[in-house]
Amino acid sequence: MALVMARPEDQCSTVRAGGCVIGGRRIVLIAGPCAVESWEQMLSLALVLKETGVGILRGGAWKPRTSPYSFQGLGREGLEILAEAGRAAGLPVVTEVTDVRDLDLVMEHAAMLQVGSRNMQNFVLLREIGRSRHPVLLKRGMSATIEEWLMAAEYILAEGNPNVVLCERGIRTFESHTRNTMDIAAVAAVKGLSHLPVVADPSHGTGRRELVAPLARAAVAAGADGLMIEVHTDPGRALSDGPQSLTPGALAEVVARLTPVARAVGRSL
Amino acid sequence: MALVMARPEDQCSTVRAGGCVIGGRRIVLIAGPCAVESWEQMLSLALVLKETGVGILRGGAWKPRTSPYSFQGLGREGLEILAEAGRAAGLPVVTEVTDVRDLDLVMEHAAMLQVGSRNMQNFVLLREIGRSRHPVLLKRGMSATIEEWLMAAEYILAEGNPNVVLCERGIRTFESHTRNTMDIAAVAAVKGLSHLPVVADPSHGTGRRELVAPLARAAVAAGADGLMIEVHTDPGRALSDGPQSLTPGALAEVVARLTPVARAVGRSL
Amino acid sequence: MALVMARPEDQCSTVRAGGCVIGGRRIVLIAGPCAVESWEQMLSLALVLKETGVGILRGGAWKPRTSPYSFQGLGREGLEILAEAGRAAGLPVVTEVTDVRDLDLVMEHAAMLQVGSRNMQNFVLLREIGRSRHPVLLKRGMSATIEEWLMAAEYILAEGNPNVVLCERGIRTFESHTRNTMDIAAVAAVKGLSHLPVVADPSHGTGRRELVAPLARAAVAAGADGLMIEVHTDPGRALSDGPQSLTPGALAEVVARLTPVARAVGRSL
Amino acid sequence: MALVMARPEDQCSTVRAGGCVIGGRRIVLIAGPCAVESWEQMLSLALVLKETGVGILRGGAWKPRTSPYSFQGLGREGLEILAEAGRAAGLPVVTEVTDVRDLDLVMEHAAMLQVGSRNMQNFVLLREIGRSRHPVLLKRGMSATIEEWLMAAEYILAEGNPNVVLCERGIRTFESHTRNTMDIAAVAAVKGLSHLPVVADPSHGTGRRELVAPLARAAVAAGADGLMIEVHTDPGRALSDGPQSLTPGALAEVVARLTPVARAVGRSL
Repeated sequence: MALVMARPEDQCSTVRAGGCVIGGRRIVLIAGPCAVESWEQMLSLALVLKETGVGILRGGAWKPRTSPYSFQGLGREGLEILAEAGRAAGLPVVTEVTDVRDLDLVMEHAAMLQVGSRNMQNFVLLREIGRSRHPVLLKRGMSATIEEWLMAAEYILAEGNPNVVLCERGIRTFESHTRNTMDIAAVAAVKGLSHLPVVADPSHGTGRRELVAPLARAAVAAGADGLMIEVHTDPGRALSDGPQSLTPGALAEVVARLTPVARAVGRSL
Repeated sequence: MALVMARPEDQCSTVRAGGCVIGGRRIVLIAGPCAVESWEQMLSLALVLKETGVGILRGGAWKPRTSPYSFQGLGREGLEILAEAGRAAGLPVVTEVTDVRDLDLVMEHAAMLQVGSRNMQNFVLLREIGRSRHPVLLKRGMSATIEEWLMAAEYILAEGNPNVVLCERGIRTFESHTRNTMDIAAVAAVKGLSHLPVVADPSHGTGRRELVAPLARAAVAAGADGLMIEVHTDPGRALSDGPQSLTPGALAEVVARLTPVARAVGRSL
Repeated sequence: MALVMARPEDQCSTVRAGGCVIGGRRIVLIAGPCAVESWEQMLSLALVLKETGVGILRGGAWKPRTSPYSFQGLGREGLEILAEAGRAAGLPVVTEVTDVRDLDLVMEHAAMLQVGSRNMQNFVLLREIGRSRHPVLLKRGMSATIEEWLMAAEYILAEGNPNVVLCERGIRTFESHTRNTMDIAAVAAVKGLSHLPVVADPSHGTGRRELVAPLARAAVAAGADGLMIEVHTDPGRALSDGPQSLTPGALAEVVARLTPVARAVGRSL
Repeated sequence: MALVMARPEDQCSTVRAGGCVIGGRRIVLIAGPCAVESWEQMLSLALVLKETGVGILRGGAWKPRTSPYSFQGLGREGLEILAEAGRAAGLPVVTEVTDVRDLDLVMEHAAMLQVGSRNMQNFVLLREIGRSRHPVLLKRGMSATIEEWLMAAEYILAEGNPNVVLCERGIRTFESHTRNTMDIAAVAAVKGLSHLPVVADPSHGTGRRELVAPLARAAVAAGADGLMIEVHTDPGRALSDGPQSLTPGALAEVVARLTPVARAVGRSL
């Protein structure tokens, strides 16, 4: 049986989230804080990110955390702050949805849904998302094989939603210097096996600020259609993921050094 | 902050599912097919398993499968068949719940809920289960650390449900001879770190019929309070997980050789 | 082509090291310190281990260490101390050989050679050992598959040395609570795939003193023919591997609780 | 204690093998067959590789193979063929040494030694190499952490040999689509942690011909100082590693598409 995600000849799909096209010649930057923390934070960040060339604003409203006692996100309030900040800056927003019962609410506020690593095989959620046509960013599970990741996309596609973007964010291995091991080969592999656009997340993929820039370059050199990068105005005070967050200024440097690499592989930024 | 799952001195909790106590002196056997396939299958199996000393009947009604095109379980009909077969044989039943919206339905029919590996960090589901007092079997995620597994249990406990049983079912490693690598040390480790009962699943843990018996013995020797074993009357025709399923006769042999090991560590079967 | 290590029907080989038979009905205990530290240490330990029922004395003379600045073992002097302590206590000794040029020297002093995890695919060393008939304990590599481990044994067997004993000592995974993940299924698997005796090393396998006893029981319950356990008279002052070493008294307790498990699977201790 | 490999400020070492400098502005290409198979093969390949811009010719004379019954390389004869082909084409050669007793012989014929993944912690071999000043390419072990890899380099450096080049070649993970998981973040990480040059091997790193080009670009974008690529005139008939070998023509295409990426990060090819 032919899979919906499989790549017939050289077809490459594009997915449009708000005014932003993922999968075209232009590399898309998705950036923002791990978690939405306040209106002031999001607004100032959204405005500066727009200036830096970011195409989609990210921010977590519901944060899946290992411990039930860690900050769990602002929930509905966070979602509304994110949406409002996006509007103010003229940026579409992406945010993670973890509960099928929140789906309508999130779709109302966010141009793009994110399915997180821990929910990559939450097939109930995938199928419900598949029943809409809402763009979705599907992160690879921490120990998901490439095949399992593509089949998770297939769950969404099979229900009729063609707007799936894959996101490589590192896999779990024995190496502890980095938070995860970024599987850059997977970026190239899924571009060959499927027609779906692929984004790379070097922030979660490495967990180390100083590795975000080289891994962003590597992902684009290997064929990624976009990058997802965590940015915080004051990483030292971030409520989550501080060590892997960049300041807006550091993001601008990443972009500056990335631009010639994008050009070298026939893309723009 | 003191964690609810942490073990003060030598306390060991017991969890009661139907008439069956998990965590006491007696090793509990949970057995049944991977998926509920038909009424005839479940009834005949339930009756023979009861004879073999099985304490809880298992069977999947909603089956999370890698591919959307694989058999996904009979759903509500499967749940009702399972419950009815349990009643006929005088066995409480356990089955996986994957959708928060099905929770009331599943609690009505099953004495014990199962949270599968793929949903170990589906915190939405864990929290809803925590709001009931329904017994729950929490399987370890494929690449979950011991700490993450215990913190997933904490999500349920923190909401007020004390009836959590942990289930070690193998972790994902580079080894391909076995389907997963059964982490027997984790069984002993969580017995030391928490007061929760622990069950081992050598069927998923190894994925190979011939390894179920030795790993069942190993788990009990290391301190497991119970075993979860896949049994099918005709493993060659099972709709899922045939290669790791035992016939009822093979289960009886496993039990026979397990009994002296249980006794050697001060337990009965 | 038929492999030498493959198991024709139900053949199980035994290997004799000094007066000690590995692979028979009796579970063999191999114990001693990670590293030979002094003559006084080895002599007193050897005498008490003999009393506890240990069959083979272990101790490292050349210690492969991650850092070149860590204690590297006493070398030739350590080998002579070990041999002399073994003679005094009436115990054959096993020690690791890391350099082909030391092979004759080590064979002269030790009844059994050990090939460590880092050298499991040091084929030059394996082949040289294969040209002798000296008993050898072949530890599984940190990330060796079962197949690679058995093929490493085949390198020795193919040269004509039939006296190979396999040793499972844990594999490298993402789990960090334990030093390695002990692959108890591998113990059972290699007993089915080959005719070679198998020993388990719960000290390196777990890296935690409190897990040595339950994993020793698990390994025997799964079919191990012997156990290798690190013992030190003062683990807090051990020059290497202190956290996983037992005192001689703790070893005696391990043995006491292991004995009924051995009996339960038709073995003695 | 200060480590020899550690990077004081912004120092970056260069290593000279024959006339070729590794670690300078120019990206070095190391290419050749997995195994030396014949004089005709090596000569024709060496000449065409020289034309393609390859700086160092590789070829295995002693091949460590999982099975003792697989092709083990031509040994001394292979070494002589390789050296002669290098001379004919004007290329320095690199080849793996696996036996300390062959060290003088290999140093006589090869401008650069290779320590393979399986021998990364063969400390006996590392120390002997450290006693010379011969350039050495130190491949990362299959499951070696970044720290272990750097400490293996330290074994060589501590003996007085400063001419160490690191080689990332993929690590062992659960993913099976690729032969190994190439750890591109490790390339960037070791450039920050040490002053040593780093080469990447996308052939072993991916095990798939179609992924060599994108991963070569990714490695250079992340900061690699060189690439090691397997090339065979007839990959379908290669005695080992055919599926990951490129034809000379395919290598030329890799180089063509790599050149702009190298330029984009301030390097040349």
